[in-house]
Amino acid sequence: MDDKWLTSLNTEDAQAGYELAIKLSRMGVKYTQPSDEIRKKIRPIYEENAENLIASSQVIATNFQTVAAANNYWK
Amino acid sequence: MDDKWLTSLNTEDAQAGYELAIKLSRMGVKYTQPSDEIRKKIRPIYEENAENLIASSQVIATNFQTVAAANNYWK
Amino acid sequence: MDDKWLTSLNTEDAQAGYELAIKLSRMGVKYTQPSDEIRKKIRPIYEENAENLIASSQVIATNFQTVAAANNYWK
Amino acid sequence: MDDKWLTSLNTEDAQAGYELAIKLSRMGVKYTQPSDEIRKKIRPIYEENAENLIASSQVIATNFQTVAAANNYWK
Amino acid sequence: MDDKWLTSLNTEDAQAGYELAIKLSRMGVKYTQPSDEIRKKIRPIYEENAENLIASSQVIATNFQTVAAANNYWK
Amino acid sequence: MDDKWLTSLNTEDAQAGYELAIKLSRMGVKYTQPSDEIRKKIRPIYEENAENLIASSQVIATNFQTVAAANNYWK
Repeated sequence: MDDKWLTSLNTEDAQAGYELAIKLSRMGVKYTQPSDEIRKKIRPIYEENAENLIASSQVIATNFQTVAAANNYWK
Repeated sequence: MDDKWLTSLNTEDAQAGYELAIKLSRMGVKYTQPSDEIRKKIRPIYEENAENLIASSQVIATNFQTVAAANNYWK
Repeated sequence: MDDKWLTSLNTEDAQAGYELAIKLSRMGVKYTQPSDEIRKKIRPIYEENAENLIASSQVIATNFQTVAAANNYWK
Repeated sequence: MDDKWLTSLNTEDAQAGYELAIKLSRMGVKYTQPSDEIRKKIRPIYEENAENLIASSQVIATNFQTVAAANNYWK
Repeated sequence: MDDKWLTSLNTEDAQAGYELAIKLSRMGVKYTQPSDEIRKKIRPIYEENAENLIASSQVIATNFQTVAAANNYWK
Repeated sequence: MDDKWLTSLNTEDAQAGYELAIKLSRMGVKYTQPSDEIRKKIRPIYEENAENLIASSQVIATNFQTVAAANNYWK
C-alpha cells in the first residue's frame, strides 16, 4: 500500500485508541481484499450477520490490546 | 461516533471492569453496524444461538484482559 | 446485573483460578443472554456439540490467562 | 469438581508445559460437559474433523501461553 | 522452507510493522499449503468471503501484537 | 507421547522461531488425533480449504507470540 495510513500507535485517550483499533481491523480486510468495489459488495452481507459482527468485534478487541499497551493504558 | 462513551479504562473493582469489557465488546458491534434498527433485528437471533453466545463471551474475555491489565488486576 | 458476583481475581491456587475463569466465561454468556429459561433451553444443544465445547474451552483459556496473570501464576 | 487435578503451573521443561496446556484444554471441555459417556460419544466426531482439530490446537496454544509465562519460558 | 524470509521483527515504524504482520500471516498459510497453484486457486474464494476476510484480519491482529511488542510499540 | 520433541523454546533467529511455532501447532493436532493414518486422510481436505488454512495460520500466530516472547523477540 503506497499511502501512509499509520504513523503512530499513540492516541490522545482510550476512545481514540479504540477507534484506531477499528481502523487497524479494517486495514487487515483491505490489505487482504484491496478492491473497493468487492469490499463494498460484501459489506451489506456481514453487517447484518450476527456471527460476522461478533467476529469483527473480536478483531477490534485484539487490536485494542495492542493499542492500549502501546499507550500504557492511558494511565 | 460523536459522543464520548469511553473516558478511561480504570474501574473501581474487577466486576466493574468486566462490565466495561462488555461495553467495549458491544461498541465493536455498534461501530461495525451503526444502525440501531438492524442491530435490534439481529439481536434475538444471536441471543438464542449457542455458538454466537460463546463467541460473544470470547470477545468479552479478550477485552477483559485489556481492562484487567489497565487496572493492574485490581491488586 | 445487580448482585455482586466478582469481588477479586485473587484465588488460593491455580485450580481455583481455573474455576474462576470458568465462572467468568459463563458470566459472558449470562450478560449477553440474561434469561435463565433460554440459556437452559440452549445448554443441551452446545453441551453435546464438539465445536461448541472446544469454543467454550477457548473462552476459559482466555479468561485463565487473565486470572493467572492477576495471581502472578501462583508462584 | 471435587478432586484436585491442578496443583501448580510449574513444569520441569517446555514439553511438560505443553502437555499441561493440553490437560488444561481438556479440562475446559470436561467442566462444560461433565458426562464421560457423552464426551466419549462426541470424541470420534471431532477427532476426524479438520476444523475441530485445528480449533483444539488453538485452545492448547492459548493455554501454552499461560503455562510458558508461568515458567518464565524455561529459560 | 529453504529461503530466508524473516531476518528480524524490527521495523522502521508502525505501518511497516503492520505489513510485516501481514507477511507473517500469509507465511502461516504458505507453510500449511506450500503449493502456489492450490493457494492461487483458493484465493478468489476467500477474498470475496466476509467470514474469511474477517478471520484473515484476526490473524494479522495477532501477529501485529507480536511485532508491536518486539518494537516496543515504536515509542 | 514418549519421545522428546521439545527441548527448549530458544531458537537462533526469528524465522527458526516461526518454524518452531508451526511445529507446536502441528503437535496440538497430533496429540488430539494421534493416528498418523487418520491425520493423513484429513490433510488434503483442510489444505485446500480457505477457512482451515486461515485457522491454521491463527494457531501458528498464537504459538509464535509465545516463542517470540521466550526469545525476547531476538533483540
